[in-house]
Amino acid sequence: VVSLIPVQGLPLIEKDDELAELIVHALRQQGDALRAGDILVLTQKIVSKAEGRIVQLESVEPSPEALELARKADKDPRLVELVLQESREIVRVRPGLIVVEDRRGFICTNAGIDRSNVVQGERGEWVALLPLDPDASARTIRRRVAELEGVEVAVLIIDSHARAFREGTVGVAIGLAGMPALSDRRGDTDLTGYTLQHTVIGLADELAAAASVVMGPAAEGVPAVVVRGVDLPSGDGSARELQRPRELDLFR
Amino acid sequence: VVSLIPVQGLPLIEKDDELAELIVHALRQQGDALRAGDILVLTQKIVSKAEGRIVQLESVEPSPEALELARKADKDPRLVELVLQESREIVRVRPGLIVVEDRRGFICTNAGIDRSNVVQGERGEWVALLPLDPDASARTIRRRVAELEGVEVAVLIIDSHARAFREGTVGVAIGLAGMPALSDRRGDTDLTGYTLQHTVIGLADELAAAASVVMGPAAEGVPAVVVRGVDLPSGDGSARELQRPRELDLFR
Repeated sequence: VVSLIPVQGLPLIEKDDELAELIVHALRQQGDALRAGDILVLTQKIVSKAEGRIVQLESVEPSPEALELARKADKDPRLVELVLQESREIVRVRPGLIVVEDRRGFICTNAGIDRSNVVQGERGEWVALLPLDPDASARTIRRRVAELEGVEVAVLIIDSHARAFREGTVGVAIGLAGMPALSDRRGDTDLTGYTLQHTVIGLADELAAAASVVMGPAAEGVPAVVVRGVDLPSGDGSARELQRPRELDLFR
Repeated sequence: VVSLIPVQGLPLIEKDDELAELIVHALRQQGDALRAGDILVLTQKIVSKAEGRIVQLESVEPSPEALELARKADKDPRLVELVLQESREIVRVRPGLIVVEDRRGFICTNAGIDRSNVVQGERGEWVALLPLDPDASARTIRRRVAELEGVEVAVLIIDSHARAFREGTVGVAIGLAGMPALSDRRGDTDLTGYTLQHTVIGLADELAAAASVVMGPAAEGVPAVVVRGVDLPSGDGSARELQRPRELDLFR
């Protein structure tokens, strides 16, 4: 049995908050503690906030390119300026939607920039950018958990992405530590002796989606979940393993 | 806490097997039972087999169109003939890969046709086609569970899909009953009072991915999982809600 355990009672996160410490404390408060082999899943939002990756829109000066793209996309030019700064390539634009390859290599809308739950009680409009290097953020949290609790956990940093061909967003991994992103079962045989082909499972994304079920929408404020009981493949990887190499991309 | 409970000890499924009965029995054997609000998740494979949706490749006569496409895709022409029969449209082809819109409207590789775990101990090569109407299959299983156990569960039928822009397959819903496919939170406010935009969550797909973590690869043979403890939105829907309308598709 796999358990998805919400971490309750976390405060609204601010710059320089120590996430590992806050999560360890919150779990203790609910009579639990991280165990070896647990997967600690965090939304990018709290990681971004702790890393100070938030920007007040009023402080942003849109470039001519941003003004032009904002017209096409019918979006706030200041937000679009940030999207451009956070992107390597614009993949698709239509009114209300900008799909990019972001600086980290992920194909996503608005370069992952998000308005919800950013700053409470402050004037102006704030947005959160993705962590600069989500794998590094995950490694830091994993190391800090080991120091605090003496256990080796895996850490996933997740976001909610739209999909090319399906409605509805789903949780996906954008950073990780302590586990591989993919579970490669090519060459195993199935129950009938047939050798499995092409069975590379996006395990980190499946775990991200699983945790996302418990987090629910941003409104409910459960930004961290512990996944317990998964028999993880060995190894330590990167969320970049989930990025399809450009030359194999059939849809761009 | 949400629990993902594998249904252990199911036999290899054959045509006309009664899945609801087998699952109810297997759960009783492991000291558990379905409860109201549970989500019973089944791989399409066992549903297809129970519905007799398996084909011996030796019995398939490839059409000229299939022979041509098989050359382009470097695939078995008999398999390609079945892919064509099961598809509305070929979306992309390259050696080793055929992406289609299948008869049910899902964008997927090979129209969801799969070789693994199909027939044990029989001669020849067998493949499983998707259930003709996976929503209807889910409704039937849900009704039968209600008759057998007196509880209302949701039922999801899932498959593993590749994605346009990410490596690794993930579990997705192709049929469902007793729950909506999408969780629509537009208009809710977040913790800071910001009104959430565009927050339509692909809940059925997130649950499919979660169950898929427990099922693991086909080799391990856990074709059914119970998800317990999710606060489902009310309503009864269809996996077709997850299909993006053609006119909103930016990538075909």
